[in-house]
Amino acid sequence: MHRRVSHDGVEDDVAVEEPLEIRVDGSPLAVTMRTPGHDEELALGFLLGEGLIDTAREATVPEDLAANTVEVAGPLLRDPGTRRFYTSSSCGVCGKGALEEVAVDAPRAAAGPRLERALLAGLPGMLRQPAFELTGGLHATGLFDSAGELLVAREDVGRHNAMDKVVGRALLDGLVPLAGRLLCVSGRLSFELVQKATVAGCPVLVGVGAPSSLAIDLAHDRGMTLGGFARDGEVNVYCGEERVA
Amino acid sequence: MHRRVSHDGVEDDVAVEEPLEIRVDGSPLAVTMRTPGHDEELALGFLLGEGLIDTAREATVPEDLAANTVEVAGPLLRDPGTRRFYTSSSCGVCGKGALEEVAVDAPRAAAGPRLERALLAGLPGMLRQPAFELTGGLHATGLFDSAGELLVAREDVGRHNAMDKVVGRALLDGLVPLAGRLLCVSGRLSFELVQKATVAGCPVLVGVGAPSSLAIDLAHDRGMTLGGFARDGEVNVYCGEERVA
Repeated sequence: MHRRVSHDGVEDDVAVEEPLEIRVDGSPLAVTMRTPGHDEELALGFLLGEGLIDTAREATVPEDLAANTVEVAGPLLRDPGTRRFYTSSSCGVCGKGALEEVAVDAPRAAAGPRLERALLAGLPGMLRQPAFELTGGLHATGLFDSAGELLVAREDVGRHNAMDKVVGRALLDGLVPLAGRLLCVSGRLSFELVQKATVAGCPVLVGVGAPSSLAIDLAHDRGMTLGGFARDGEVNVYCGEERVA
Repeated sequence: MHRRVSHDGVEDDVAVEEPLEIRVDGSPLAVTMRTPGHDEELALGFLLGEGLIDTAREATVPEDLAANTVEVAGPLLRDPGTRRFYTSSSCGVCGKGALEEVAVDAPRAAAGPRLERALLAGLPGMLRQPAFELTGGLHATGLFDSAGELLVAREDVGRHNAMDKVVGRALLDGLVPLAGRLLCVSGRLSFELVQKATVAGCPVLVGVGAPSSLAIDLAHDRGMTLGGFARDGEVNVYCGEERVA
């Protein structure tokens, strides 16, 4: 996950970034720039978040890891050609219309769990980031149970990849939908991170950084609890306050 | 660029994030999640970075800004269906092979300018971020001349969008290729940000955060100067040291 480089006459570690080609039944589907490792998890989490699968699939990485490919067994739930990057209808009048345009179908979050505010605020501190410590160049996502115990943590140069890897691991472990569980990210809360959390059925998402307006809108719409600026023992709760004691 | 929300009984500002549909000659090409404003610049910078245009085009935003669309006059330089998100060949053996797979064609950076290290280190401090001050939720990119004077600055929830808007503005102002100029970003240095800078012909890119391995590889390959961790009067120079006094 890190590589030694020299700069200004000293040696230093930088986070590794390489392209990964995700293939389904032998056909290339997408390329993402990611930190190598846990590529099967990344592929499955990505496909779940895009609404292309809803259960675990066989995902295999070739013996030659440097090939930077991962093969996933099909079939997919829908034609990936309709994915939202190439949308064919114009957006609505922002707010609800924008949400309808870009959101993947996902049920509203289940009720619970009931959480202490201090637990939410403390999640980032429990999110281990060994490679970030070395490089300063990696995002992290952690999955926690409702008691605040860390279940899975992943790091990646891409914030979305770190989330995809955690969700993919949870899918392989039979933990999806993530009812009663908590996700925590090391950075800001974008629309897409909330989308990935809601599609995975997670009721609570906390970030160290700021939320965007659409991240709050989507979390509110899906009945999630969204916490931002979780640091120094504090957290802002933007919606879903009913879960926070 | 920001919206008032309430949380925990207080009022606060959050960065606005909404989808933008980029259309070319009336056909939808892509949707990006962005902070509204400077949408013409975003569209042109995005298309330049993707290798789809190489000169300024007419770009118009409808009178109803809430439509969240921008129209660009074609034709494009190539079929956008071949863009690298849907690549059809497998990646090489990382390093050079990976670069060949994902990189857009761009010439090597022109020689110069010659810069003081302190000037590079000081660029982030000159990068005005008024909306970040309010929300904590925006990335910024700035374009500077070789004397360190700020020419353009843009903020956006998406780091790539902030870069696209600056490059799009520069394209409209006849400043592309950006020979002799400097780009500075408020966050980390990913492969894609280096790619956008090199396609725009900029010889120097500096970031407040860490570079990835592939960002360094690409910058080195194109003869660019790449500086990271620019803060507190210091900067790490990972390649292109010949420009730094």
